[in-house]
Amino acid sequence: MRSWLVLTDGFLTARNAKTAHGVIRYTSDRIAAIVDRDHAGSSLHAVMPELGRDAPVVASVQEGLQYAPTSLLLGVATPGGWIPEHWRAWVIEAIEAGLEIANGLHGFLNDDPELVPLATRHQARLWDVREPPAGIPLFSGKSLELDKRIVLTVGSDCAVGKMTAALELEAAGRAAGRSTEFIATGQTGILIAGRGIAVDRVISDFIAGAAEKLVLESSAESEVLVVEGQGSLWHPAYSGVTLGLLHGTAPEVLVLCHQAGRAAIEEPPYSTLPPLPEMIDVYQSMAATVRPAPVACVVVNCRGLDPGQARRTIEEVEDDTGLPAGDVFRGDAPKLWQAVDRRLAEIAG
Amino acid sequence: MRSWLVLTDGFLTARNAKTAHGVIRYTSDRIAAIVDRDHAGSSLHAVMPELGRDAPVVASVQEGLQYAPTSLLLGVATPGGWIPEHWRAWVIEAIEAGLEIANGLHGFLNDDPELVPLATRHQARLWDVREPPAGIPLFSGKSLELDKRIVLTVGSDCAVGKMTAALELEAAGRAAGRSTEFIATGQTGILIAGRGIAVDRVISDFIAGAAEKLVLESSAESEVLVVEGQGSLWHPAYSGVTLGLLHGTAPEVLVLCHQAGRAAIEEPPYSTLPPLPEMIDVYQSMAATVRPAPVACVVVNCRGLDPGQARRTIEEVEDDTGLPAGDVFRGDAPKLWQAVDRRLAEIAG
Repeated sequence: MRSWLVLTDGFLTARNAKTAHGVIRYTSDRIAAIVDRDHAGSSLHAVMPELGRDAPVVASVQEGLQYAPTSLLLGVATPGGWIPEHWRAWVIEAIEAGLEIANGLHGFLNDDPELVPLATRHQARLWDVREPPAGIPLFSGKSLELDKRIVLTVGSDCAVGKMTAALELEAAGRAAGRSTEFIATGQTGILIAGRGIAVDRVISDFIAGAAEKLVLESSAESEVLVVEGQGSLWHPAYSGVTLGLLHGTAPEVLVLCHQAGRAAIEEPPYSTLPPLPEMIDVYQSMAATVRPAPVACVVVNCRGLDPGQARRTIEEVEDDTGLPAGDVFRGDAPKLWQAVDRRLAEIAG
Repeated sequence: MRSWLVLTDGFLTARNAKTAHGVIRYTSDRIAAIVDRDHAGSSLHAVMPELGRDAPVVASVQEGLQYAPTSLLLGVATPGGWIPEHWRAWVIEAIEAGLEIANGLHGFLNDDPELVPLATRHQARLWDVREPPAGIPLFSGKSLELDKRIVLTVGSDCAVGKMTAALELEAAGRAAGRSTEFIATGQTGILIAGRGIAVDRVISDFIAGAAEKLVLESSAESEVLVVEGQGSLWHPAYSGVTLGLLHGTAPEVLVLCHQAGRAAIEEPPYSTLPPLPEMIDVYQSMAATVRPAPVACVVVNCRGLDPGQARRTIEEVEDDTGLPAGDVFRGDAPKLWQAVDRRLAEIAG
């Protein structure tokens, strides 16, 4: 059980604090305090009530130590993926206090010639969350023989809520009495689950092998694995990771995640997205090369819509696709889990 | 201009000497000699006439030195991707003779604590062909703005001849008076072209970025780039690399490569291949997210078929797909190039 000191300095409410927000919202660990000078003296609940959690917001790592943290989280995406220079003194303070440092950035703490010996001296663990484990094998097809049901969230684009959908469905399945397990494939998911592989950091020949390894090494007691998807088949920068994950995990049920109103991907080359029924066909047809995996439901992220608009949008998606739809951010996970569970029952039967 | 001493000891005629065979057949460098104890005293032409090239076959690196090589090629895929222990003495002899060592294996010579200082002392270059360059960027979409025509070979499976098709089409295009350039994306192609990136060795977040970099850094004088494809959308172990390359290079014309008679992929999970027209649809539909890229023709590898069977197979493929088909191993590259060139003319018009 960790106790997190979450460093977001200057970014607590920003979109690039996605990792911090995800961990705060979903970790089963304790949140000791938030370090953010812009909001110091306030509380997490006052600044971001939507995260559903409270903790003091403090101005420095030193000040945060009074809340008995075990770990410092570097939870903000930074330009170039490196630790900002002005955070460095704080990281050093945390190491000197014996805290574990959890780093979700591309740049690794364990490559830092100053921090590594300091951490050794203070017995502080440097956890580079994206660093893949050694010895990832090539894809073998063994995932097909695993006697567990495998569900994968897939998306129309990046940042539409694939991780959140997987976490919410896993929780809804557990609430419904199934032995579900969330399988993390990206840095935020790994911080939440405490394990996983950042598949986008693996050598590309081993994407599917890494995905398969995650499935094969799931907990012995899990019956249903809910795997966090990555990227989108329509996002050229990440489509390779998306397809490698789709094939490597060998899912039997897919959950399509979409941002309401998004007609094109949000980054260059801003490719136009096909209609939802076509996206469903493409994911199903690409999955089928390994085994059939019907899309069971559509998760619609209705961020920014009022309740009436959200309801109408979800109804439209249901009409367009003929599938149950809902927004996991608005409490629809139990309904969506039922759709997943019906598909799973069809496979078992 | 290199002069190759090709080390295939015990594998000269084996399928895992694919890299050696490719380099011998297509390099514009000189082949000094082959080191292979099983065939020593014979000639390359006598042992493998199909490679269309001659050189003495010798029993040792020492013996090969009399033919004035500049470079030793480790041209055989080995178990685990590491240099077999009994080759090590030969590599050391070659380094001591000042030869460049070209290594297409997964294991890198530049990670070897014994070979690196030895090579430094003898001013011998250790060329790890699969080692990606530093600083590969994320995909940006700039490949879409490049004023060059881009052709990509894609395949139904691995080892069906995508590299050979690209090399033969590039040569046929050049023979037809176009300024073509072969773009290498795998170790054998890189050894032949003298440059390129092994896209399967890149961190998976950067597959498309690496592919785009290759296209953007092509020679200024080239009008048409013929890019070597990798893997297959139906091979789960490599499909991520295939799609990343398809999106990252942003081709305008595709060439589908297929092995005659192959109905399923040759490795686990032995997925069934769809009919050729469906494969064409899937590649075209996946490419279209970046830009339209019709399949212009089908390259049919008729290995093992007699001339009559090959002719009938190719005619059947033409009937099934409505596209020109042919075998580049049997002299059909000029015909196939014409099909590519017609598509290119349609784009230009």
